[in-house]
Amino acid sequence: MKAVILAAGKATRFGGLKPLAPLFGIPIIEHTIRGLHKIDVRDVAIVYNDKRIKEYLEKKYPEIKFIHNPHPERENGYSAYLAKEFANGPFILVMADHYYSSNFFSFFKNFENMECERCVIFVSKEAIGPEEATKVKVKGNKVVKIGKNLENYDYFDTGMFYCTPEIFNYGEKLLSHEIIKLSDIMNSLARDGKLHYQIIEGFWIDIDTKEELKIAEKEIEKSMMKKGDGYISKLINRKISIRITKMLAPYNFATPNFLTLISFLFGLISFLLFFLHHPVLGGIMTQLTSIVDGCDGEMARLKKLQSKFGASLDAISDRYVDILIVLGILANLPINQLTLLSFFFAVTGVILFSYAWHLTQVRIKFGGRDMRLFLIFLFALLSPFAPNALLLSLLIVIGGITHVSVILSLLKLKLRGE
Amino acid sequence: MKAVILAAGKATRFGGLKPLAPLFGIPIIEHTIRGLHKIDVRDVAIVYNDKRIKEYLEKKYPEIKFIHNPHPERENGYSAYLAKEFANGPFILVMADHYYSSNFFSFFKNFENMECERCVIFVSKEAIGPEEATKVKVKGNKVVKIGKNLENYDYFDTGMFYCTPEIFNYGEKLLSHEIIKLSDIMNSLARDGKLHYQIIEGFWIDIDTKEELKIAEKEIEKSMMKKGDGYISKLINRKISIRITKMLAPYNFATPNFLTLISFLFGLISFLLFFLHHPVLGGIMTQLTSIVDGCDGEMARLKKLQSKFGASLDAISDRYVDILIVLGILANLPINQLTLLSFFFAVTGVILFSYAWHLTQVRIKFGGRDMRLFLIFLFALLSPFAPNALLLSLLIVIGGITHVSVILSLLKLKLRGE
Repeated sequence: MKAVILAAGKATRFGGLKPLAPLFGIPIIEHTIRGLHKIDVRDVAIVYNDKRIKEYLEKKYPEIKFIHNPHPERENGYSAYLAKEFANGPFILVMADHYYSSNFFSFFKNFENMECERCVIFVSKEAIGPEEATKVKVKGNKVVKIGKNLENYDYFDTGMFYCTPEIFNYGEKLLSHEIIKLSDIMNSLARDGKLHYQIIEGFWIDIDTKEELKIAEKEIEKSMMKKGDGYISKLINRKISIRITKMLAPYNFATPNFLTLISFLFGLISFLLFFLHHPVLGGIMTQLTSIVDGCDGEMARLKKLQSKFGASLDAISDRYVDILIVLGILANLPINQLTLLSFFFAVTGVILFSYAWHLTQVRIKFGGRDMRLFLIFLFALLSPFAPNALLLSLLIVIGGITHVSVILSLLKLKLRGE
Repeated sequence: MKAVILAAGKATRFGGLKPLAPLFGIPIIEHTIRGLHKIDVRDVAIVYNDKRIKEYLEKKYPEIKFIHNPHPERENGYSAYLAKEFANGPFILVMADHYYSSNFFSFFKNFENMECERCVIFVSKEAIGPEEATKVKVKGNKVVKIGKNLENYDYFDTGMFYCTPEIFNYGEKLLSHEIIKLSDIMNSLARDGKLHYQIIEGFWIDIDTKEELKIAEKEIEKSMMKKGDGYISKLINRKISIRITKMLAPYNFATPNFLTLISFLFGLISFLLFFLHHPVLGGIMTQLTSIVDGCDGEMARLKKLQSKFGASLDAISDRYVDILIVLGILANLPINQLTLLSFFFAVTGVILFSYAWHLTQVRIKFGGRDMRLFLIFLFALLSPFAPNALLLSLLIVIGGITHVSVILSLLKLKLRGE
């Protein structure tokens, strides 16, 4: 499947080069390019007017085709028409100044094996700024009419389409008009009963103002949190890690796996500090490790670079850090049966907790890594007052909450009857 | 969805009560009942002639309806017709003397949201004993003709159908005939273009002879192995555990979770034997634990009782046994830095190995539990000759193969580009 992104708009209300405006550290249009890449749509053309768009993107994405629109004043229907040569089969048509959540892109997987090709407009039940949005009136499984000023409508146009080359025939008929809006083309398809629609859940926004850019950034922040985030993660860690992720987002080196490596190094330093009998510094570094640990997943979701390898690397390197920190704590204690058993209790608990979570998918919030590393931070900070007692209790507490969580997750699964 | 099982056949070639003949310790018909339960089809009727079938099953499955066929000589089409009152909506129609692999049943999930109801015969490309099998000739997406003696055919009739009550109308038209075969009814549907077909992969067999019963048992044995089984598992453990599972299958107490508990107790005894300085006995018990560990999964697959809770309970209790056995081994060694580090290396390795396997789904065969417990068995058997050296090496070897496997599974994932 190919894709066409319309980026020749004049952006009168926005000012500046809208498609390149940074949205959470990444140009708006790049979110869409990455979304298309995520579903393996790599044959992409961008219809542009301002050459700075081409100059910026062709360096980063050399495989993208660029189609120049010398008449942006003729509007987005004309821009779409210019993709006629490029789009000789079914294609995705999307606006450069819209932001969409991931499920919009992943939905196209459903079209791949579709027997009958047809034009489909993606519609939503809600819109940010509904008065400015394009409305859609439907009947049965077809669109009757679309337009900004429809009084009687069912859905909102999200600016994303699955098209067949037939739209170019309809575009051609309108070529004598000076202004050709995409909605004009779509309305002529609709009149012939050739425009279908697909209701889609999830966030989307047409970014016309700086305020709408802010709304989109808030939404991206929300999408970066994980459902199972623990209390410390929500209250402290995410607030900081999301800032770091945003700061690093513009840089190419800031891949999720690179951030996993950084977090691993932070963890190693925590271990060494504990191991070399600097428990206070070790504790502080442990909490920093906990914060930085959020960034790899956030960057993966932001840059749409999630992979099984990345997720596994993150999880396994976190477990190595976990057990090393517990070993580092032991290094501050005298070796005897009690400390060894406590160590055994803690070191097995920290791995088994994550093991149980991956198996059962039951999240025990108080037992998570965020809480555990925060406890290490607190106990270590206080450790100068009573090193042995505090660090030994720490091992027992870690062992206690993790093993109890393992049993609880099994019980919860049983109660749910799964 | 309802289901009708036809169990009124005369089984002339088989001798005895065929539907109740034990297939891997469980009556043939029960495999089908369990298959239907697995997909939550609990409204089941059985058409029978011999009252022993009813007597046996009604005790075990009180919710099943029984429909008596006083004229088994009128054949299976007549039996099916007798379910007219019961089957007032779409239903599954299946033979009591056939064995099907699980995917046959799970396929019905696809019918649940089907818009148009229609009669569908499940067909396969291959059959055990093709000369005796009923053949199916198709054209487009419909069946043209079915029969045992078709010379020109495309598929084999698997004896499983998705039916609408319409088949009773066709059955009624044939009521004046003395003998009504199911294939007669299906052929009259086919003549009116009302019989669709669904090609299905996977094992099925019509059990007419003791030899075919043996073929089915072999197939069940195969289905009990896991794809990722290690070398020791394939060569030794499965050969014994499958015998145990078959022996226990007839008993109701032998649930998968009960067997998980038994395997956990075996593991605890291994730990205690090691801990109380009986490494040779501990080693023998460890290998027994390894063998018994296979039974819970085998029983779950045999009795179609797989559950997320069962799988998690098994995995987590195995991990507790693993770490306790390693602790038991340590109890036979002097406590010093080397033994403690080796212990730490081994105890973290055994959990991380399984953690990595669940995350990556990459199986490193030489690092699995079967191999590890077998090594413990071997080293422990030899331990009287040089206890310290051998048990210390054992910890280092366990740590080595497990941690190396963790890294290898990550590398493999990376190489696969997942």
